[in-house]
Amino acid sequence: MNFLEKVICEEGTVLSDNILKVDSFLNHQIKPEVMLEIGKEFSRRFKNDPITKILTIESSGIAPAVMAGLEMNVPVVFARKKKSLTLNQDLITAQVYSFTKQETNEISVSNKWLLPEDHVLIIDDFLAHGEAALGLASLVKQAGATISGIGIVIEKSFQAGRRKLEEEGYRIESLARIGSLSNGKVTFVSEEVACNE
Amino acid sequence: MNFLEKVICEEGTVLSDNILKVDSFLNHQIKPEVMLEIGKEFSRRFKNDPITKILTIESSGIAPAVMAGLEMNVPVVFARKKKSLTLNQDLITAQVYSFTKQETNEISVSNKWLLPEDHVLIIDDFLAHGEAALGLASLVKQAGATISGIGIVIEKSFQAGRRKLEEEGYRIESLARIGSLSNGKVTFVSEEVACNE
Repeated sequence: MNFLEKVICEEGTVLSDNILKVDSFLNHQIKPEVMLEIGKEFSRRFKNDPITKILTIESSGIAPAVMAGLEMNVPVVFARKKKSLTLNQDLITAQVYSFTKQETNEISVSNKWLLPEDHVLIIDDFLAHGEAALGLASLVKQAGATISGIGIVIEKSFQAGRRKLEEEGYRIESLARIGSLSNGKVTFVSEEVACNE
Repeated sequence: MNFLEKVICEEGTVLSDNILKVDSFLNHQIKPEVMLEIGKEFSRRFKNDPITKILTIESSGIAPAVMAGLEMNVPVVFARKKKSLTLNQDLITAQVYSFTKQETNEISVSNKWLLPEDHVLIIDDFLAHGEAALGLASLVKQAGATISGIGIVIEKSFQAGRRKLEEEGYRIESLARIGSLSNGKVTFVSEEVACNE
């Protein structure tokens, strides 16, 4: 069990077969030292790639992305879910459907901060159905930049996201891969180990 | 001129007498090493206070708050501008009027992460009219916790925010204080120095 899986076991709450609540360290309260470890691990996994920029999406992607950026010494850009009044020029946009909220949001980024020569690592907190990651990938492609890979903090491997991203040919690095949330229990893909085992 | 004022001079864009765009390092693209310096400076300024938690607001407050939390070794909680589907219990809320957007948002935080024994440092990216900081202070008070102070990355000192917060008796530490954005020029309060001088 890696450091993140241990934190998930200690602090995560299974709300249903689909929903893991991690609001003590990632989604609402943030533990900076856990974020730093996450950043170091992303940096280690992508150390052989010529990454020049990290792209994430507000709000829960920002903390892990900024720590990865600190370790990798590259800037971070966060896509917005709502348009800013002072960021209205040269926007690249993509539609992202949220299965949880059952609504489509337009996410956007200024093409000033995503350049054709950029090699971009996409980072997000969760991978479920893959819609947010595909939207971020679309932003990178529209900017003419290169997608180096996708770094995910927590992957729900029992949902379709990874398969969809793999079909597009992207390299995916998920720091914790959850195989099941059935019966109120977190089971990881790695060695099929569950939290209380 | 301190490190942050230098970054503002090099990278900020004056959009009007009221609006400074800092989307190259803080509001859209984030420079992690600048955020780390900001975190260190907040930590230095509040080093004699028994701070147990940092409270900020999504999205642009998160990066400086997390770096301050890393330096001070305390967790960070971010208030949400929109309710989360998995964060709907035990919410404390406050109304925040945005002069820029001319709309009122309800911000919220779970009282699970703000406890009566907490000593809270409030951190935000900008201080203008003070509405967001007052809303965050209201959340801390509703939780029965203690407000140790308010840390601001960029204060627009020509607007009413600081005065309103001082009237409430809060300690305010702003890392860059802007006295004027007139004539397309950034002038700092410190020594009345302007960017190109």
